[in-house]
Amino acid sequence: MSAASASVGREHDQVGPGRPATFDHADEVFSVHRRGKMSIAATVSLRDAKDLSLSYTPGVARVCAAIAEDAQVARDFTWVSNAVAVVTDGTAVLGLGDIGPRAAMPVMEGKAILFKQFAGIDAVPITLGTTDVDEIVSTIVNLAPSFGGINLEDIAAPRCFEIERRLVEALDIPVFHDDQHGTAIVTLAALHNAVHITGRDFSTAKVVISGAGAAGVAVESLLRAAGVSRISVADSHGVITPGRTYLTPVKQRLADRTAGWARSGTLEEALVGADVFIGVSGGSVCEDAIASMAPGAVIFALANPTPEVDPTVASRHARVVATGRSDFPNQVNNALVFPGLFRGALNVRATSISTSMKLAAAEALANVVGEDLRDDYIIPSVFDPRVATAVADAVMETALREGRVHPAA
Amino acid sequence: MSAASASVGREHDQVGPGRPATFDHADEVFSVHRRGKMSIAATVSLRDAKDLSLSYTPGVARVCAAIAEDAQVARDFTWVSNAVAVVTDGTAVLGLGDIGPRAAMPVMEGKAILFKQFAGIDAVPITLGTTDVDEIVSTIVNLAPSFGGINLEDIAAPRCFEIERRLVEALDIPVFHDDQHGTAIVTLAALHNAVHITGRDFSTAKVVISGAGAAGVAVESLLRAAGVSRISVADSHGVITPGRTYLTPVKQRLADRTAGWARSGTLEEALVGADVFIGVSGGSVCEDAIASMAPGAVIFALANPTPEVDPTVASRHARVVATGRSDFPNQVNNALVFPGLFRGALNVRATSISTSMKLAAAEALANVVGEDLRDDYIIPSVFDPRVATAVADAVMETALREGRVHPAA
Repeated sequence: MSAASASVGREHDQVGPGRPATFDHADEVFSVHRRGKMSIAATVSLRDAKDLSLSYTPGVARVCAAIAEDAQVARDFTWVSNAVAVVTDGTAVLGLGDIGPRAAMPVMEGKAILFKQFAGIDAVPITLGTTDVDEIVSTIVNLAPSFGGINLEDIAAPRCFEIERRLVEALDIPVFHDDQHGTAIVTLAALHNAVHITGRDFSTAKVVISGAGAAGVAVESLLRAAGVSRISVADSHGVITPGRTYLTPVKQRLADRTAGWARSGTLEEALVGADVFIGVSGGSVCEDAIASMAPGAVIFALANPTPEVDPTVASRHARVVATGRSDFPNQVNNALVFPGLFRGALNVRATSISTSMKLAAAEALANVVGEDLRDDYIIPSVFDPRVATAVADAVMETALREGRVHPAA
Repeated sequence: MSAASASVGREHDQVGPGRPATFDHADEVFSVHRRGKMSIAATVSLRDAKDLSLSYTPGVARVCAAIAEDAQVARDFTWVSNAVAVVTDGTAVLGLGDIGPRAAMPVMEGKAILFKQFAGIDAVPITLGTTDVDEIVSTIVNLAPSFGGINLEDIAAPRCFEIERRLVEALDIPVFHDDQHGTAIVTLAALHNAVHITGRDFSTAKVVISGAGAAGVAVESLLRAAGVSRISVADSHGVITPGRTYLTPVKQRLADRTAGWARSGTLEEALVGADVFIGVSGGSVCEDAIASMAPGAVIFALANPTPEVDPTVASRHARVVATGRSDFPNQVNNALVFPGLFRGALNVRATSISTSMKLAAAEALANVVGEDLRDDYIIPSVFDPRVATAVADAVMETALREGRVHPAA
C-alpha cells in the first residue's frame, strides 16, 4: 500500500489495535474517500408531527395498503423504480483481483455515485460476504424486490456467467454485469467509429481479442451480434480453438463460435495482418506484434491502469489508439453506458436487457461523436451531457419495440 | 384503499394495464410519497476528469488496496460504518400484517429517513422476497459486509425471534429487531417515569401486558431485567402460565419466567387491582376492566392506530395514560430510541446490543424528561433535540464499559 509506506510529513491515524497505519492527509485520494463518498437524503420534510404523520405512521399505512392491493402502485410511490443495487463479491476488483467484499466497497460507492451523477439513479452498493454461486444468486433474488435493477460488478469469471444467467432467468428486472456488457457496448461503439474512420467495415475487419474473461467473452459476443465475424480470441494459452483441451464451457462455446475464422497459435501470430486489436486481458503485447498488424490498424488497449501496449508505442504503428485511461485520447469508459442504459431501462420498466438493447446503446453512443469524428475522437467524453440521454433513449425505444417491458410502462 | 374509492375532483393515474387507479393528487399522503421519500447523494464532487480519477479509477484502487491490507481502514474511508440496513420480509407491517415486501417499502423508507433525520445515519431499506427463516438469515449474513448494523423490522413472531437470535450469533455488528427492543426500551423509559410520578416502584408494581408477540415478549423481558417482577402476560387465550397447552417455545419460556406471579385466567381477571396495563396486542379492553385496576393506575395502550383502550376512556380511571399516537399526550414512539441507539453503537463500533445497553438507553431517555415530569409528560417528544444524543451517549458508554466493541473503537 503506497500511502502506508510513505513516512515524511504524515499524520498518524489509529486504524487498528496497536497498528497505527500512516496516511497522508494531504493525499487527495484518501482525503476524498474519508467517511465514504455517498449518503442517504430524505426527499421529504420531517420537521414536525404533521410531516411525520404523512411520511410515517399513520399516513404511510394507506400507501402500503394501496401497494398491497396493486403492486404497480409501488412504481410511483416508492423509490424502488429508481433504485439499482450495485452488487459484488469482491473477487475481480479493478486490476486488484480477489480482494474481498470490504476492500471492494470504495469501487462500488464510486459506481453508485456515477449512477447518480450521470443518470439520477439511486444506486446502493452491496458487497457480499460469500463467493458461492448458489448463495449469491439466492441472496440477490431475495433482495430484488427492493430494487428496479441489478448491476453486477467485479465478479470473477467464469462464475459471473452462471450468476448472471441464473439471475436473468429468475428475475423480471434488468440484471446487467457491467464488466461484461458495459465494456462490450462501449467497445462496440468505439469500434464502430474506428472502423468507419479507417475505411473498414465490420463484415471483413479482422479482429483479435486478448482476454477471455468476463469482458473478452462479452466483447466477442456483442461484436459478432453487430456483424463482425472475423474474430480470434486469445487467452494466456494462445488463441482459443475447439481443439484445445481443458476449456471451460464458456470458452468451449466461444471456440465453437469463432471456429470459422480463428486459427490456433499464439496471440502474436494472430496479430499478423490483423486490422483490430482489443486488449481486455491485463497482459502485455510486444511492439513487434503490434508492428505486424495491417496498415492503419486499430488498437484498443483497455487494461487499467496498465494498457496491454503503451499507447505512445501503439501510435507508432496504428492509426487509431484507445485505452481505458482518462489521461489519453479515446477513453473506453464503462461510465459512458451503464448510467444511460439503466436510466432507459428503468424509465420503461424493462424486464431485462436484450442484445438489441445493447446494440442500440452502442450505436447511440457512437453517433454522439457524429461529424466530429477524428482518429483521436472516436468516443465521447463521459462528461458530454448528450451521452446518457442518447443511450437512455435508444434503450427505451428498443425495449418498447421489443415489448420487453412491464405492462404499465 | 380509501384513496382509490373516492372519485370527486380526482385525476387519474395509469398504474396498470387497463386498470386506471384513482388517486387524489391533493391527498397529502400520496403527494408526499410520490417517487418515494429518499435518494442517494454523492458527498464528493464529480465535475471533471480529475474528480473522477480521485473518487473512481485509478485513485480508488489505492483505497481498496489499503482496506485489503487492513480491513479496519474501511471504517474511515467507506460509508459502511455509518450505514444500516433496514430489513423486512413484509410479514408484520404496522397494523396491516403480512402484506409482502413491495407493500412494506413505504414503511422501510420512512424508517430510513427517520434514521437520517434524527441521527445522521445512512439507512438502506431492504424488503426481502422470502419468508423462509434460513433464507432470511443467509441473505442478511451475506449482505452484512455492506453495513455497520442491521435493523430488523416488521417480521412476524415467532420467526422474528429465531431470525434475530441466529443473526446475533453469526454477525459481529449490531442486529436489532426494533419491533421487539425499540418498543421495549421506550416502554421501559415511559414506565420508569410513570411509576415514579405515581409513587410506585418497580419491585412491587403489578404489571399486566396484553400481547405476546414480538413487542410483548421483549417488553416483559426488558421490564424484568429492569427489576419489575410482578408481571402477567396475556395473549388472546388469556394469561400465559406454564400449565397452558400448545405454547410456542418462546411463550413457554415466558410462562416459566412469569410463573412466580402470573395466575391463569383472562386478561380482565388479571387487571383487577393491577397497577400498570401495557397493551401491545391490537386487541381491545373494556372500560369495566380498566375501572377494576388499582387507584391511580398507569395505562399504556400502544396499539396503532387503534389503542386497546380509548385514551379518553382510560383517563377516567387511570392517572397516567400513554399511547402510540402523536395526537395524544405521552406518545410511546420507537423513533425515540432506534436513531440514537444505532448512532451510539456505530460511533464505538459495537459488536452487538446488550441488555445493559438497552437499559441504559431507557434510563437516558427517561431522564430527558427530568424536572418537567408530569402525568401527561412522562416521555419526551421525538423532536426534542436532546433525545438522540442522550440515548447515543448512554449506549456508547455502556458498550465501551462492557468491552462490547471492535478493538479500534
